[in-house]
Amino acid sequence: MSPAPAFVAGAGMIRFGKHPVDVTLERMGVGAARAALADAGADLADVDGLYMGHVFGGPVAGQRIGAQLGLDGKPVSNHENYCASGATAIREAWVALAAGLHDVVLVIGVEKMTDRIVGGVRPDPGDLDAAVGYVMAAGHGMSARRYMADHGATREQIAAVAVKNHAHSVHNPFAHYQKPISLEEVLGARPIAEPLGLLDCSPISDGAAAVLLCNRAGLRRLGLSGPVPRILAVGLVSGFVQTGLGDLNAEDVSRRAGEEAWTLSGVGPGEIDLVEMHDCFTIAEIVRLEGLGLVPRGQGGEWTAAGHTALGGQLPVNPSGGLLSRGHPVGATGTAQVCELTWQLRGTAGGRQVDGARTALAYCKGGSVNGTDGGSVSTVVMTR
Amino acid sequence: MSPAPAFVAGAGMIRFGKHPVDVTLERMGVGAARAALADAGADLADVDGLYMGHVFGGPVAGQRIGAQLGLDGKPVSNHENYCASGATAIREAWVALAAGLHDVVLVIGVEKMTDRIVGGVRPDPGDLDAAVGYVMAAGHGMSARRYMADHGATREQIAAVAVKNHAHSVHNPFAHYQKPISLEEVLGARPIAEPLGLLDCSPISDGAAAVLLCNRAGLRRLGLSGPVPRILAVGLVSGFVQTGLGDLNAEDVSRRAGEEAWTLSGVGPGEIDLVEMHDCFTIAEIVRLEGLGLVPRGQGGEWTAAGHTALGGQLPVNPSGGLLSRGHPVGATGTAQVCELTWQLRGTAGGRQVDGARTALAYCKGGSVNGTDGGSVSTVVMTR
Repeated sequence: MSPAPAFVAGAGMIRFGKHPVDVTLERMGVGAARAALADAGADLADVDGLYMGHVFGGPVAGQRIGAQLGLDGKPVSNHENYCASGATAIREAWVALAAGLHDVVLVIGVEKMTDRIVGGVRPDPGDLDAAVGYVMAAGHGMSARRYMADHGATREQIAAVAVKNHAHSVHNPFAHYQKPISLEEVLGARPIAEPLGLLDCSPISDGAAAVLLCNRAGLRRLGLSGPVPRILAVGLVSGFVQTGLGDLNAEDVSRRAGEEAWTLSGVGPGEIDLVEMHDCFTIAEIVRLEGLGLVPRGQGGEWTAAGHTALGGQLPVNPSGGLLSRGHPVGATGTAQVCELTWQLRGTAGGRQVDGARTALAYCKGGSVNGTDGGSVSTVVMTR
Repeated sequence: MSPAPAFVAGAGMIRFGKHPVDVTLERMGVGAARAALADAGADLADVDGLYMGHVFGGPVAGQRIGAQLGLDGKPVSNHENYCASGATAIREAWVALAAGLHDVVLVIGVEKMTDRIVGGVRPDPGDLDAAVGYVMAAGHGMSARRYMADHGATREQIAAVAVKNHAHSVHNPFAHYQKPISLEEVLGARPIAEPLGLLDCSPISDGAAAVLLCNRAGLRRLGLSGPVPRILAVGLVSGFVQTGLGDLNAEDVSRRAGEEAWTLSGVGPGEIDLVEMHDCFTIAEIVRLEGLGLVPRGQGGEWTAAGHTALGGQLPVNPSGGLLSRGHPVGATGTAQVCELTWQLRGTAGGRQVDGARTALAYCKGGSVNGTDGGSVSTVVMTR
């Protein structure tokens, strides 16, 4: 049985980027939450509970944010699924609304990264994959090489993902980067894990994004009428693919995450008008779209180079700029994706609006799904 | 609206205590999960998803345990609410079952503490309370002094909590400590935060506890008939009491957690036959029972000394030994409490059985509820 949909009554973000030390986790979370409340015309007294997504915030981070927000006494829970943490918090909130435990809840995703992470996210000391050099960037570099070898894709096609997503976020006031970049810049950037260079990698960002979700009783409490974008379903799938076995780009976990999205939501892949995709690396956008069944296997490079996944194309992907250009404060990415879909489905996304957007998908991948430790893929299906 | 009850189809633990380094978080979690499955006569194929409670396990700890357990492909989510983490994971599982998202789920609480924590849990560097000396033990020491001053309670009455709980866990094969201690030993132990000494404090423990929860469809899948203990409701309340304002022992957050338990479950405090209480310190058991309204204000010391909260008394508290003697691997405590209540409600708790136990309550407190950062209180109401 699929739980009832959740309505997105409000969506709010602070700009992603490198923020000063005194722009704390708590300040960012409060800022995003207040923006979501204001967007819904709601206030704190309307809120039954708080669902927090974060990875590095430390114990009871949600309670610290709740305290500064003034949300005393309400249930607060913290949800962690690495880069899918924000989406996982949304999943738990969706279920609580469907079960009738709550009618109106805040979901905040937040991460303060730039003051603690230099270079890339450091792997866990016990991570056997990392110990043999199979860190995140290396895995995606291997994925890109394999993809080029198997499908005759070119380096330029893969780099085109970064050019596209940076072009989109020129129109996103909440994006970490808001300047276009050229194909030459991507190709000429410092190598990270060949063939991928610096601009094929999502940055280390600070940021927060929040949504105010409700069920039908909550809509009445908030006095909302007219069309309100809905979360039809949130899928969550775990996967553990042994490195070296099978095809690195088979994306079995994405296929299953897609199946869960279609089954739970009743929406088919052909109905999706736009996607917010977890493009932690350029190549990841391509193989994940293929894994989901939204782009034919092996054609993602051509699709990107041909503009099919750009604004104005047949399946716009990452109108927000995605992780590559909106930025990637890990716990905030899942909630930021749902903010973007909400604005797109309302038709208020300004210069990055996807015309006629009716049904949309967000996808996050958390943890080392291709490694031995496993991870999670989340899918959020929304409609207007 | 209160979500439908969840049935506890199986309960399993590994013994709490100080385990060698090679008894990893993953091994402990897998051990508890297999015990819960075996207890239910279920196997992995019956499980729809995994809900993990932990604090210090690092990102995607649940996925690491799921991988070693062999639970590939199923949704895994990680839930953190400091010492209420296990109970919070149970709450999210309960709601998912009620909403029909899943029919059978595993909930694992786990913590590996002894190889990383020496002495006490180190406060966060940004914790302003701790920076001025208001660490956990100091807060409870102040609470004890205040309680003695306000209610004429004696040091011996407070120490009696430790004597009672250690006496109970002599009968608990999963307890960290399984030997009785004397009042003299408690009074003569090394001072920690006066008037509290070492034996007034719960230990640093490793451990894991798991429950297999299901809804009515899940009962059919598992082929279970006859009475199965039920979780009627899980309450969750946050609180932020400014230090120095008001009465340290007013336990407003416990009062509200109790109210949420009674409202959600439809059970009244007078119907509770036994309690698993978060006795992280001796005094905490007393003031929290009073906060919940289960013991009259100011009489908890007398009640303890008179044996009213011991096995055979009118309201047995912590038949398992509680945090003081079963041990306190923080993320595992909430699930261990529900294991204990399950065995008690089945009537299979052996030498620590509460006669005629029909309705029971578990309580956890996570984070610094009396500090400025805030925390959470969870309440689980069960019946047979």
